[in-house]
Amino acid sequence: MLSRRNLLTGAALLGAAAVSRASLSAIPEAAYPAGPRTQVPPLPTTGRPFHPVVTLNGWSAPWTMNGEWKEFHLVAEPVERQIAPGMRAKLWGYNGQSPGPTIEGVEGDKVRIFVTNKLAEPTTVHWHGMILPNGMDGVGGLTQPYIPVGKTFVYEFELVKSGTFMYHPHADEMVQMAMGMMGLFIVHPRDPAEHRVDRDYAFLINAYDIAPGASTPSVATMTDFNLWSWNSRVFPGIDVPVAGQGERVRIRMGNLSMTSHPIHLHGHSFEVTCTDGGWVRESARWPEVTTDVPVGAMRAVEFVAENEGDWAFHCHKSHHTMGPMGHGTANMIGARQDHLEERMIKLVPDFMVMGNHGMGDMGEMEMPLPDNTLPMMTGSGPFGALAMGGMFTVFKVRKGLGPRDFTDPGWYTQPAGTTAREV
Amino acid sequence: MLSRRNLLTGAALLGAAAVSRASLSAIPEAAYPAGPRTQVPPLPTTGRPFHPVVTLNGWSAPWTMNGEWKEFHLVAEPVERQIAPGMRAKLWGYNGQSPGPTIEGVEGDKVRIFVTNKLAEPTTVHWHGMILPNGMDGVGGLTQPYIPVGKTFVYEFELVKSGTFMYHPHADEMVQMAMGMMGLFIVHPRDPAEHRVDRDYAFLINAYDIAPGASTPSVATMTDFNLWSWNSRVFPGIDVPVAGQGERVRIRMGNLSMTSHPIHLHGHSFEVTCTDGGWVRESARWPEVTTDVPVGAMRAVEFVAENEGDWAFHCHKSHHTMGPMGHGTANMIGARQDHLEERMIKLVPDFMVMGNHGMGDMGEMEMPLPDNTLPMMTGSGPFGALAMGGMFTVFKVRKGLGPRDFTDPGWYTQPAGTTAREV
Amino acid sequence: MLSRRNLLTGAALLGAAAVSRASLSAIPEAAYPAGPRTQVPPLPTTGRPFHPVVTLNGWSAPWTMNGEWKEFHLVAEPVERQIAPGMRAKLWGYNGQSPGPTIEGVEGDKVRIFVTNKLAEPTTVHWHGMILPNGMDGVGGLTQPYIPVGKTFVYEFELVKSGTFMYHPHADEMVQMAMGMMGLFIVHPRDPAEHRVDRDYAFLINAYDIAPGASTPSVATMTDFNLWSWNSRVFPGIDVPVAGQGERVRIRMGNLSMTSHPIHLHGHSFEVTCTDGGWVRESARWPEVTTDVPVGAMRAVEFVAENEGDWAFHCHKSHHTMGPMGHGTANMIGARQDHLEERMIKLVPDFMVMGNHGMGDMGEMEMPLPDNTLPMMTGSGPFGALAMGGMFTVFKVRKGLGPRDFTDPGWYTQPAGTTAREV
Repeated sequence: MLSRRNLLTGAALLGAAAVSRASLSAIPEAAYPAGPRTQVPPLPTTGRPFHPVVTLNGWSAPWTMNGEWKEFHLVAEPVERQIAPGMRAKLWGYNGQSPGPTIEGVEGDKVRIFVTNKLAEPTTVHWHGMILPNGMDGVGGLTQPYIPVGKTFVYEFELVKSGTFMYHPHADEMVQMAMGMMGLFIVHPRDPAEHRVDRDYAFLINAYDIAPGASTPSVATMTDFNLWSWNSRVFPGIDVPVAGQGERVRIRMGNLSMTSHPIHLHGHSFEVTCTDGGWVRESARWPEVTTDVPVGAMRAVEFVAENEGDWAFHCHKSHHTMGPMGHGTANMIGARQDHLEERMIKLVPDFMVMGNHGMGDMGEMEMPLPDNTLPMMTGSGPFGALAMGGMFTVFKVRKGLGPRDFTDPGWYTQPAGTTAREV
Repeated sequence: MLSRRNLLTGAALLGAAAVSRASLSAIPEAAYPAGPRTQVPPLPTTGRPFHPVVTLNGWSAPWTMNGEWKEFHLVAEPVERQIAPGMRAKLWGYNGQSPGPTIEGVEGDKVRIFVTNKLAEPTTVHWHGMILPNGMDGVGGLTQPYIPVGKTFVYEFELVKSGTFMYHPHADEMVQMAMGMMGLFIVHPRDPAEHRVDRDYAFLINAYDIAPGASTPSVATMTDFNLWSWNSRVFPGIDVPVAGQGERVRIRMGNLSMTSHPIHLHGHSFEVTCTDGGWVRESARWPEVTTDVPVGAMRAVEFVAENEGDWAFHCHKSHHTMGPMGHGTANMIGARQDHLEERMIKLVPDFMVMGNHGMGDMGEMEMPLPDNTLPMMTGSGPFGALAMGGMFTVFKVRKGLGPRDFTDPGWYTQPAGTTAREV
Repeated sequence: MLSRRNLLTGAALLGAAAVSRASLSAIPEAAYPAGPRTQVPPLPTTGRPFHPVVTLNGWSAPWTMNGEWKEFHLVAEPVERQIAPGMRAKLWGYNGQSPGPTIEGVEGDKVRIFVTNKLAEPTTVHWHGMILPNGMDGVGGLTQPYIPVGKTFVYEFELVKSGTFMYHPHADEMVQMAMGMMGLFIVHPRDPAEHRVDRDYAFLINAYDIAPGASTPSVATMTDFNLWSWNSRVFPGIDVPVAGQGERVRIRMGNLSMTSHPIHLHGHSFEVTCTDGGWVRESARWPEVTTDVPVGAMRAVEFVAENEGDWAFHCHKSHHTMGPMGHGTANMIGARQDHLEERMIKLVPDFMVMGNHGMGDMGEMEMPLPDNTLPMMTGSGPFGALAMGGMFTVFKVRKGLGPRDFTDPGWYTQPAGTTAREV
């Protein structure tokens, strides 16, 4: 499912400078994904066995065994990311996408990670949550020199404990993260039976501020973002996690935005079982239906998918489940708007009266959008418009799904008499 | 204490369309409260026994037993809410108020909830935290068709576990919640001795953005609210919880605003014992004096009211304990303001110089306010101005209160020599 | 290390009114620190024995034993605080600095705290988290009269439990805290072996909004601060905590800003062992590398300093690790800026083109700053520019440090072959 990059692909045109092949002779080729859809990693055929995670709208980096070392290659570079159908963003990422590939290893692995800098400014990679030698910590100026433009640096360390981690630059940090540079780093237990689940999903929580019609994020925005995304994707561009009824599910989330995100799942309660600090002992776990993921922190939640159906799964800050075109809208509830549109349109071309009875009809309106942006509320389900955006998707539980079946099974058909109905 | 609505009350004039009586023949009449003050629910006389919660500035919905079903009736409609004496807001709510009535049931109950839509746009009701059939989950477009204007839908499900839940629309969600549509849903344990406390209080945390002088919230505000409220009330409009000294107290809070609220109690430390995911096992509980309630999450805290007195109980984000008129104030500390007022007043009618020594005197000033808003700092206690607003009230602990006595006992009289004093 | 104030010091000129010596005859003299650097408290020579905390960029108040009472004296007054070299702020604080001195006591101590008000408005002191008589709780208007300008009040209470607490005004609260009035209050266990660690650090998390070139904070700012500080200091002005390799370390943090701060430590995972509500039982502790400290709450984290090196220690909201001059910067990434500077400079004196390849070079630029402010990114380490600001410092772990050695040991020298390197 992963394609090796060759110089004729469109990805090569994204602004990265050519890398001298000579200097890279001993470096494994960097892998590039086919696109922004979820790519289920193959079961490992080299190194220690493990059950791979499924990164929503992401993929896992392949590796090369070199003696006892597992070698990976990350290329930091400008990328284009489809945020959802209808909108593309010019971001910075790794290996052709933002976020970069998920790195997966096993407790006890020795990893060697080559990082090539194809950005126009220096960078580094910090391995968030890892216990490693100080010089491998990736803090530019403090633990290592910056990786200059055009150069490749190598990081080497042992994975001393299993858990849920991430990587991101520690160099011009606010800018480089605001541009999309980040990826997941999952370390599986040495014993594959330990912490075993049937489904293991993962994604990063991020946010962008891209003016409608533009494609490059504002990097100086501090709190007022307009694209609230999971793995740099927004609804309806976020793929759906699925589970067979009765299966044990884990969802791992890391937050690299600027505010906490209370992630809410319908129809099930769950427990946080792992943070970026390690596994949470059972005696310390809380039952929750909404877990607040702090900035710069990771949470893995686990639950049994007991209840069949289509369960909303979203951030509970309600403006985070809206698209960019809803930001800055004036309140017209209760205001008479007769003739307002015709008068305003003389002043503001494309002016449109919005919601004097509320905004529920926005999801169905044929609103003319600027090029390359997304509506405030969009998407449709089996019963009509969903009228959502941003950090929203649907977790689908079905009877009889096979253990590695990750295909969207379509909408759930409610059995007769089990849906709210008119009386 | 609850009055059955009749068509001659003022509430009928709030913009709701008339409902055909014929179509409602089998539907229990919707109950309306007498006003915005706390209404202590009666002990249940039908169905399983339980100890009702006391909703601060709210009430509990009565029900009708219909065979084995407990029937409730919610009417979604425009309402007027007194935010505090001196300010009324035009909100959307249920049964004449925002929040709507607290629904209380017992583990094992089968509930049938009729929802009549008297808004000007479609709605649904989502039962946050509940384990129920997918078709009863109330997500418009996904699990059910929207409830059209003027129609009544019915939800039916069993209360499979006890805990602290809430309800709100999942239809034009940001707007409908920003307008005040929400309510508590408490499920009591089947065994009334389980998780038993002497006092059980509950409220929802919400926020509005209403320009001074206006009465309708801005529904597109994302972070910059000016009314930080509990159950759509602000200090000094928030009723006071009371307890007898030595009693075990529970306070249940659910957050449907856009930011987390660190709720702080003076004079006692407490533990979170329940979330919207269920009861927290004892081994997992933390001692706290401030619990951060995330957005879209609920926290029940418990403690023994060991210490007599008047204990401040408030959100610890200090701008959340201010009224709307403080927002946007310029800093004059250290600035000479001689003649500033007379010069400014030529430019800005009603200009007033504020606090060049601080703002502590704002609480006592006779500041001319626009109609229908609240001062920045107000209220008074036994020792002078309290100078607070927003999410602030006083938790009063007294010797010898009876178990169902919820009357504000007035200010606590400090015994001689136990108050900070001049030397 | 603490100097008794005399009337000839510069501190006396900071605007505080003279206090009548007569009225203070029985009041212990107030102690003033020598400056804003960390002052390691001496081991106690009177009262119960304890291991003092080290307040980063702070000090601990000395006391006088008066019979069975431990007497402290706080003077609330305008102060000048060096935020970092190059910037001074006009704040309000206690005893010449903001924050005020750390108060340390032992479980069972009876404390008498004199508070003299040298501000231009009334104040009070609330002892956050303490269990004490209602009249000593310090809520102006509610539990006591305000302390008038020029007067001294006395608080008396017993320290009934050990833990991590703080003090701040409960009078014109938003203003007085926004101006810097706060301090730590640590209560040590009666048995010094209980909860014993080798290193015990503490600081308060706060934030200011001071326009570049100005020196007085805006007190009406609600979320948009530009100085994100620890103990009213920002990087590179924050002193470095150090530990000997293998030592057990505690870091206590209390948040009196307006937003939560996810505090992140590199190279180690830790557990929260204490909040302002008390000690967290072991069964309830989570492993973390980032702990989100809510507003109005305290967290003590503990870990063993296992790994030698220079470990970044910072808030993970990336705009909180920037200086004030980065706020409001426009995004120039990807924009051609040829001749922009010369054209703009005609319109805006001192205009400077920023970062069309990113902003990593900001840390090294010779950017002309207004007087009395700090650059966006600054500081340098052993490998070049650190390019950080705000809530950032380095936690230094070294072999063979003595137990009370708190001197910055300089940069860590990476052993050969243990640093990320070019290939």
